[in-house]
Amino acid sequence: MLTSSIFRSTFRPSSQRCWIHVEKRLEELQLVLPPAPGPKANYNIVCHASGGMLYVSGHLPVKLDGTLFTGRIGADGRDVSYGYEAAQQAGLNILSTLKAQLGDLDRVEHIVKIFGIVQSTDDFKEQHKVMDGCSDLMMEVFGKTAGYHARSAIGTSTLPLDISVEVEAVVQLKPFVK
Amino acid sequence: MLTSSIFRSTFRPSSQRCWIHVEKRLEELQLVLPPAPGPKANYNIVCHASGGMLYVSGHLPVKLDGTLFTGRIGADGRDVSYGYEAAQQAGLNILSTLKAQLGDLDRVEHIVKIFGIVQSTDDFKEQHKVMDGCSDLMMEVFGKTAGYHARSAIGTSTLPLDISVEVEAVVQLKPFVK
Amino acid sequence: MLTSSIFRSTFRPSSQRCWIHVEKRLEELQLVLPPAPGPKANYNIVCHASGGMLYVSGHLPVKLDGTLFTGRIGADGRDVSYGYEAAQQAGLNILSTLKAQLGDLDRVEHIVKIFGIVQSTDDFKEQHKVMDGCSDLMMEVFGKTAGYHARSAIGTSTLPLDISVEVEAVVQLKPFVK
Repeated sequence: MLTSSIFRSTFRPSSQRCWIHVEKRLEELQLVLPPAPGPKANYNIVCHASGGMLYVSGHLPVKLDGTLFTGRIGADGRDVSYGYEAAQQAGLNILSTLKAQLGDLDRVEHIVKIFGIVQSTDDFKEQHKVMDGCSDLMMEVFGKTAGYHARSAIGTSTLPLDISVEVEAVVQLKPFVK
Repeated sequence: MLTSSIFRSTFRPSSQRCWIHVEKRLEELQLVLPPAPGPKANYNIVCHASGGMLYVSGHLPVKLDGTLFTGRIGADGRDVSYGYEAAQQAGLNILSTLKAQLGDLDRVEHIVKIFGIVQSTDDFKEQHKVMDGCSDLMMEVFGKTAGYHARSAIGTSTLPLDISVEVEAVVQLKPFVK
Repeated sequence: MLTSSIFRSTFRPSSQRCWIHVEKRLEELQLVLPPAPGPKANYNIVCHASGGMLYVSGHLPVKLDGTLFTGRIGADGRDVSYGYEAAQQAGLNILSTLKAQLGDLDRVEHIVKIFGIVQSTDDFKEQHKVMDGCSDLMMEVFGKTAGYHARSAIGTSTLPLDISVEVEAVVQLKPFVK
């Protein structure tokens, strides 16, 4: 622990990343990141704020082939497990954004807050189980300390582009080491 | 004021809390905190971030007996006053979480932001009056300086577990005094 | 640039504002700010937090004459362009709040995050295009560096006072110069 801390503050060249823990973990879990998504309209995919806080825009559940998880959970055979997959996929898109923006997923100190909005039929009441698709992912990838976040999950009647789930996040970054 | 400030920075033993202002206020208001709620799925009930910011997960209106305020406001006799009570109860659950997490409600510097989502019929348009149930509570308990927060209130067609109101918060904590 | 920076830290009297860039820009764009809105219930229109973060409450699309953009986008001829105008108007109300609270819009370092909720029919799926009404405004007024924010946009079935769009924001302020 001490050694690693000394190493970090003295020897780390910016062109040669030293922590590949998180990306190694992704490999172990056989998770494949989709291409980094762009914004769907006139906004930024993330925005930095003071104190190393990173605000992550609402992300869509874009699959590897570029198609979306669409439709209301609770209708047409879209059950909790379909929603869970959609939330997980939105989470993978967030990871892809973080990697593209930060260069290295190990720059994440903590996933602080997740807000998930689930397009739902009026009588679907298990948005919290749907959102575990994203939360389980964050905890598996970053581990309990860095991945365990505050969260809100709600249902709604409609979402942009008919997506089944939209997920935004607030992330605490590690101080940047030169 | 000066005395209190000196007292604070020198004599406060961690095992012996010195400020019981807020909890005394709770007693005066004859408010009873429900048991500290746990998360309903795989997330943390709060998460700390830099600058003494505490993100509080979406809270449910859990009553003292463990049951929930459920159903849509605007239907089946659930009017503004039912919603107001539900929002107040969600607020009491947040207070219970804060007490459990911080040990002492006087560690709250400021309630910064409240976001309330009200399960509503399509023609119910008074979510702002419903959310005053929570806002009034925060201001009565913490007073105008510490309790007066920014807020957003929206309606939606459905919420997890059929709850009538869900409330999340961002809280500024006082610097921790050793 | 250097001169301006020196000037800023040494000569700026609090009663005589030195940066009128943003307000000049408003004039150039022929944008007229509505009167600063007050809260519609028991909350603050903004709340300051550590690190120069300003939380801006959910704002309504109040027109210059005090009336509101109301009704669901997707119904009764309310199309994307009606929603776009409503989101822009909510944005102008946020600017008016910022000016009233900060004295000077040049105290804004960065628009960090915008969250927009669009009252929509169930089959309306272009909330992202509606919310560009607000995002385009912020970028035109503050420019790409300060105005380019993270964003989430969702639809919902109902909003307070039947407003078509509600917008909240998180804003990074410049350190206060005495």
